[in-house]
Amino acid sequence: MTTAMVEKYKAFYRLLNKTSRTLVDRRFRQQGQCARGGSAASGLDHRPDAVVEQRVSYLGCPKRGLWTSARASLPSFVDGGFARDYPMNRCRSFGSVAGEIQRSSKFATLNSDDVAHFKEILGERNVVQDERLEAANSDWMHKYVGSSRLLLLPKSTDEVSRILKYCNSRCLAVVPQGGNTGLVGGSVPVFDEVIINMALMKQVISFDKISGILVCEAGCILEDLISFLDNQGFVMPLDLGAKGSCQIGGNVATNAGGLRLIRYGSLHGNVLGLEVVLANGDVLDMLGTLRKDNTGYDLKHLFIGSEGSLGIITKVSILTPPKLSSVNIAFLACQDYLSCQKLLLEAKRSLGEILSAFEFMDSVAMDVVLNNLDGVRNPLAPTAHNFYVLIETTGTEESYDKEKLEKFLVGSMESGLISDGVLAQDINQASAFWRLREILAQIEPFVYEWTSNHRGSISAEHGVGLMKANKIFYSKSPEAVQLMASIKKLVDPKTILNPYKVLPHSLMSYS
Amino acid sequence: MTTAMVEKYKAFYRLLNKTSRTLVDRRFRQQGQCARGGSAASGLDHRPDAVVEQRVSYLGCPKRGLWTSARASLPSFVDGGFARDYPMNRCRSFGSVAGEIQRSSKFATLNSDDVAHFKEILGERNVVQDERLEAANSDWMHKYVGSSRLLLLPKSTDEVSRILKYCNSRCLAVVPQGGNTGLVGGSVPVFDEVIINMALMKQVISFDKISGILVCEAGCILEDLISFLDNQGFVMPLDLGAKGSCQIGGNVATNAGGLRLIRYGSLHGNVLGLEVVLANGDVLDMLGTLRKDNTGYDLKHLFIGSEGSLGIITKVSILTPPKLSSVNIAFLACQDYLSCQKLLLEAKRSLGEILSAFEFMDSVAMDVVLNNLDGVRNPLAPTAHNFYVLIETTGTEESYDKEKLEKFLVGSMESGLISDGVLAQDINQASAFWRLREILAQIEPFVYEWTSNHRGSISAEHGVGLMKANKIFYSKSPEAVQLMASIKKLVDPKTILNPYKVLPHSLMSYS
Repeated sequence: MTTAMVEKYKAFYRLLNKTSRTLVDRRFRQQGQCARGGSAASGLDHRPDAVVEQRVSYLGCPKRGLWTSARASLPSFVDGGFARDYPMNRCRSFGSVAGEIQRSSKFATLNSDDVAHFKEILGERNVVQDERLEAANSDWMHKYVGSSRLLLLPKSTDEVSRILKYCNSRCLAVVPQGGNTGLVGGSVPVFDEVIINMALMKQVISFDKISGILVCEAGCILEDLISFLDNQGFVMPLDLGAKGSCQIGGNVATNAGGLRLIRYGSLHGNVLGLEVVLANGDVLDMLGTLRKDNTGYDLKHLFIGSEGSLGIITKVSILTPPKLSSVNIAFLACQDYLSCQKLLLEAKRSLGEILSAFEFMDSVAMDVVLNNLDGVRNPLAPTAHNFYVLIETTGTEESYDKEKLEKFLVGSMESGLISDGVLAQDINQASAFWRLREILAQIEPFVYEWTSNHRGSISAEHGVGLMKANKIFYSKSPEAVQLMASIKKLVDPKTILNPYKVLPHSLMSYS
Repeated sequence: MTTAMVEKYKAFYRLLNKTSRTLVDRRFRQQGQCARGGSAASGLDHRPDAVVEQRVSYLGCPKRGLWTSARASLPSFVDGGFARDYPMNRCRSFGSVAGEIQRSSKFATLNSDDVAHFKEILGERNVVQDERLEAANSDWMHKYVGSSRLLLLPKSTDEVSRILKYCNSRCLAVVPQGGNTGLVGGSVPVFDEVIINMALMKQVISFDKISGILVCEAGCILEDLISFLDNQGFVMPLDLGAKGSCQIGGNVATNAGGLRLIRYGSLHGNVLGLEVVLANGDVLDMLGTLRKDNTGYDLKHLFIGSEGSLGIITKVSILTPPKLSSVNIAFLACQDYLSCQKLLLEAKRSLGEILSAFEFMDSVAMDVVLNNLDGVRNPLAPTAHNFYVLIETTGTEESYDKEKLEKFLVGSMESGLISDGVLAQDINQASAFWRLREILAQIEPFVYEWTSNHRGSISAEHGVGLMKANKIFYSKSPEAVQLMASIKKLVDPKTILNPYKVLPHSLMSYS
């Protein structure tokens, strides 16, 4: 790193630090308004209608990991009935698209006949125009606020199909919505798109203990699936800070990476099949649960990471690995970035098959966490360290794994790769180490805001959404983006699915 | 399994046994005509023009794993110049499409102007009409024989692009070809398609020892990449019996699964990026080497497993894991199929992170191998066992891994899951165990033939190719196949890329 780069980097963090503190302070002051998101979801409920109110109440107020002391506040409730006309394009201050786009006149405007038709399909109860609509109109950061006048809660693939068939024939734009925990406005209406939230499709359809293959509906909450699998002796190949609110369908639609990518790999490898409803209502059954099926093109990958712009994911089949009993966690300090890189290489080589996580943060990020948030402390002595690394191993034999990790740590200390380190002695210490990393994830939104305001460079962690639709050329070639646009037009010719997002507006002819 | 099913199964194998012996005998008699395929490829050559003759000579005569004593014979050489008019549709006795399809009149016929143009692009030497053309016109089983009058050997992406741009403008059909080791006719011309073989694009472009990311050209031989990585302390996340001949581009185009899928997962998880040339000559750069890049649709997956029908893969970026030093192999016997299933579950749970392969064969398959092929023997005492399982562990500490595997085996013996077993004591024994499984893979073609003749059910191991293009509906829904056809027409409107294959002819309007 050149000196100039180091200075730029420091300046970035100084500003981030300031911005974050201000924003976090503001959020702390709002604390307490969001009691409904505080309790942990308990287990997985298989009764179709159970806990619906509880689930839906999470909309706009997700439980994001362990950041229990700084939650997004719910908007004050208003009478949000059909007659109410929300101001359009309100409050979208995030990113560079605010004010740049206009509602496309090709989309129809919702009328009372439409609402009546949806009530025929879904029943009175699941066509929502009360206060839950306002929550669904906004992301949890309140950075994106739409003006949809209708929230639909389908209970089956058939209902999703009938909704989309109707919307397509009427040219009514829709926005598919899962746990609404994203950071780029992907699951929030831009204008008055009809919101289709998947919260009621939360059944586990099957689980095969021999193969570890789980088939479930798209609205299953990630944390519920983790609990379900834990009881079966298996684990989800995905873990996220937002697991208490996010839905598996949304995870797949955004190709969520998560904390253990190094061990389990991407969802493109673990998702074995999908059921997707296309814009015209056609149901695309790609639920094959074979690990080897090479007939034709593997279409499901198009939908993994497509952010609801090509179809609505209704079912997911996913390969889950067996749970291993022994978990060890170390928290380490390195003097420079090169040492961190070398440490990763050494860890892959020496810990090999038991390495399950390698997470990295620098001292400025650590300071931001320590200075702004309660209940966390640096596990290492308060010396000036430049970088911190969390290493997790997962295996089958506690004592052997621990011995192996200790040997690796002693070796790394002797070779100078690490300057300090501590091994978690119990589950509480282990949780405390992870909390540092998970809390850091909560600060990401402020990094996005800063990045968006100051450099506009694109990030790959949360998809494109609305925020970055016009910036895709930073990371993808013009030919590739052109092909994406052609595929979008092929699959959704009226562009009713999540319009204005993912792809650059110049290619999508919304006006 | 019901008694009726058991009987059907036995009958299947009796016939397979008979068929295989006949076919294998025939192949043994031809032995010795294929001296050029016998020697092992040594290392990876980076000089653009080196060993070209050697490589190209493999066409039609692939080195398939360890089956050194029973190779496909090369066809007798003929004068295969431009003037020669091959009989069309000759010799395609495999599968049910023989005689069913006609050459599409929409494709142009090659003329001398075309050949002159290709010589301008590629130079005289790499526009081939000599005896190598006949080898390239046939698969290694001689089940599919085409009548192409031109073999092109591009050396760069730009050359591939210029070839396709020209072919598209002229409506000349092409067949992309790698090592030509497939079993379903995917890389052999059906009629007179121009063959584009990637053998000369065999450069390693970059390898990052920190991340383990390899970027190489599509024509690299798998075994050469394995050797290259071995020298760097890494492994390919893919191993195949045909590694001595098959090319990485072909592996990706057919989504080859290979022997260690359980450890490394599918190519959809390991391939980080591709460069692909589309039918119109456009180069699609999707070579991003980030593990997390969620901007737009992940188009590369469309090309993984598309068998050259959507574009020609020219470069591959792949994530490779570090090589681990300790490998242990056990060869076991089980009394029934249920025990094998339970053993797999137990192995995943007890061996967990070190389990790298679990391969299964039944006693009839074992008999076929033992009775028909020299140099193999059953490692277990000659008692009547019904099923055999090969288990491989890979880890970082020899003694610990061995102890762990032994403990698992003793436990499985005590619980009755396995009835006998032996642990390889050295590298020779380990190789001998693997040889049994690898040789079994060589018998697959005869299984395909039998299956194709007697039941016509579709297999997922080798793609669709020509053999099964009209049978895709057995495994994919009509909506999914329709979308595949739409995407094919979008990307290759003149259907010049590998026509008649992969997708059902009813949807592709070839006539």
